[in-house]
Amino acid sequence: MSNDEAVFALHRAGKLAVTSTVPLSSRADLSLAYTPGVAKVCEAIAADPALVHQYTWVSHTVAVVTDGSAVLGLGNIGPAAALPVMEGKAVLFKQFGGVDAVPICLATQDVDEIVATVTALAPSFGGINLEDIAAPRCFEIERRLEDALPIPVFHDDQHGTAIVVLAALRNAAALLERKLGDLRVVVSGAGAAGVAVTKMLIAGGVRAADLVVCDSRGTIHNGRSDLSAAKAELAGITNGHGLCGSIVDALAGADVLIGVSGGEIPEEAVATMAPNGIIFALANPTPEVHPAVAARYAAVVATGRSDFPNQINNVLAFPGLFRGALDAQATRITEGMKVAAADAIAEVVAGELAADAIVPSPLDPRVAPAVAAAVAAAARRDGVTR
Amino acid sequence: MSNDEAVFALHRAGKLAVTSTVPLSSRADLSLAYTPGVAKVCEAIAADPALVHQYTWVSHTVAVVTDGSAVLGLGNIGPAAALPVMEGKAVLFKQFGGVDAVPICLATQDVDEIVATVTALAPSFGGINLEDIAAPRCFEIERRLEDALPIPVFHDDQHGTAIVVLAALRNAAALLERKLGDLRVVVSGAGAAGVAVTKMLIAGGVRAADLVVCDSRGTIHNGRSDLSAAKAELAGITNGHGLCGSIVDALAGADVLIGVSGGEIPEEAVATMAPNGIIFALANPTPEVHPAVAARYAAVVATGRSDFPNQINNVLAFPGLFRGALDAQATRITEGMKVAAADAIAEVVAGELAADAIVPSPLDPRVAPAVAAAVAAAARRDGVTR
Repeated sequence: MSNDEAVFALHRAGKLAVTSTVPLSSRADLSLAYTPGVAKVCEAIAADPALVHQYTWVSHTVAVVTDGSAVLGLGNIGPAAALPVMEGKAVLFKQFGGVDAVPICLATQDVDEIVATVTALAPSFGGINLEDIAAPRCFEIERRLEDALPIPVFHDDQHGTAIVVLAALRNAAALLERKLGDLRVVVSGAGAAGVAVTKMLIAGGVRAADLVVCDSRGTIHNGRSDLSAAKAELAGITNGHGLCGSIVDALAGADVLIGVSGGEIPEEAVATMAPNGIIFALANPTPEVHPAVAARYAAVVATGRSDFPNQINNVLAFPGLFRGALDAQATRITEGMKVAAADAIAEVVAGELAADAIVPSPLDPRVAPAVAAAVAAAARRDGVTR
Repeated sequence: MSNDEAVFALHRAGKLAVTSTVPLSSRADLSLAYTPGVAKVCEAIAADPALVHQYTWVSHTVAVVTDGSAVLGLGNIGPAAALPVMEGKAVLFKQFGGVDAVPICLATQDVDEIVATVTALAPSFGGINLEDIAAPRCFEIERRLEDALPIPVFHDDQHGTAIVVLAALRNAAALLERKLGDLRVVVSGAGAAGVAVTKMLIAGGVRAADLVVCDSRGTIHNGRSDLSAAKAELAGITNGHGLCGSIVDALAGADVLIGVSGGEIPEEAVATMAPNGIIFALANPTPEVHPAVAARYAAVVATGRSDFPNQINNVLAFPGLFRGALDAQATRITEGMKVAAADAIAEVVAGELAADAIVPSPLDPRVAPAVAAAVAAAARRDGVTR
């Protein structure tokens, strides 16, 4: 069987089932799990809505919601074609976090309609994982849902990536015996991931003034008049020295390059970076800088691919993050919870660091429990538990 | 442990899980079920949307959708308190039909918002089971969703009840050696179930002119000016002799009484029915006529309760009905499919009929496969398969 054949054979009839966790083989079973017994539980929840977290599946369930507009590297392929990815995400949620996840692929890409739909269906779930929704509307959708809903809302393409990047950068810096606050960082890409990575790195200790974000037109600075709301916000926070020009200008003397754009970055530009640096080229399937090229100029290199060392993979974050948020009955995901997740991921391999081993394997079973515990503790510390 | 304690213990953390049906223990597994392998499947579906039925869970999945407005006998208890019932429904779907069902409890009771929400989330599911939505808006919601969606939409409180009533009436008539077309039938109740039962009985062979529907104000006839759209439609079809007055007037000389109202029907009225008749008193937990009273005047008596003989239970219909519709890749549920489901349910016990055994037990494992096969065949006959 070829690889393609194996892929299609595996996906036949999808990858998920909904199963019962209660017995149902006798009339007595039926009268407990369904009528008339179930009415007692309904009445109890109607009288005290908080009991929904004790007596229904919301305590361990998230919806994985997409509009199919930015799926993997495939782009805007719509809801039906996005479903295999969302099912896969649900499989990962279960495998690593013990979280029961339901794929919800929406037949709309309108911000108002997406917000209204997710708000309407939210009572069935303990959390909302937004997935593969294109920028810039992903920002508004997430913000509005966070305001509207009493449960955690998390756009994984933004924050999942950002959490794992921060974890990897912590360990890369530790390995190189450098401090995050001393690093000059360039982020290439100002889409969903780039914006979130930038904010997460600052939250984690990178000096905002020493961080420069580039989009396809060059560095983002306050002098530009063509910036979206999200980019204008970045211009106000980052690039304290008002660096203008292209990414080539930004990279001269930089210590860290984080590529989340997909645009190729020329070797000549990478060559001008400071010695002993760090390159994360995360575009899939084609990294912004090929890791073999990056290794000529940087001491630590990471990609988004599984066939090179140091894979920056969101699966290190989202299962444990939601597990911890659900365990703590968190009402939202705070910056503190995300930083705690990054620190926990980094910590798992802190004692076994090497240039080709700055992050755990995506299959490392130690990660999700560590992340869950750290996130639940941070939720309690931040006072966002129910 | 008391019965209440047993109920709450059983419901702790809910009654459902989402599980993976594929292995995920190695990097090779991960690359088949998730990136990069999954991209091949996404691209194939993007190129040929019909493949979603082969390579995702939609081929075996329905959403159980409620707005929490008419839950069991509890009324308008809202979405969170309705969730235990929807989970129970999903358990029944899996146990009897092998259908993977996801409870979706909506935070809105507005018709337009419900229609928009279900339309938006429909790409993730192979069918929509509407549940416990109050009349009259359940009629409009179902009709609009049937028009909007290319997958089966089915309001179980209407049609599930109607299918099992028709099955039971077929067997009761057979036992009494009477023909459906010769029976004078009174339906007490013109809500969701009453309207659907009336239409189903007519589709199954009861003469419309000889069927009289009563609401709380009496018989429904063309002379009334206070009728909703659904009731006005019934007035146009039924009660060919224009019978006026109360249910007491309607019952004089009637052969069949079907109670789906919850309103008590006095013994004096039941006493005026023709001899050798049939009474289905389906209100829960209090039948319109107590079965002991009904048995004084009717040859066959059924209720909605599990603690009396002849329980009219929707679980005899919906698991097999959706299983058959999904197996046939039906795009909708036709009248022919519903009649076929009723006939199949009746047929299962046709050879073993008795006055206290006109329908199969809810746990009878023969029912759902028989219903599924009959419904799939009817879908093909009616030309509604994909």
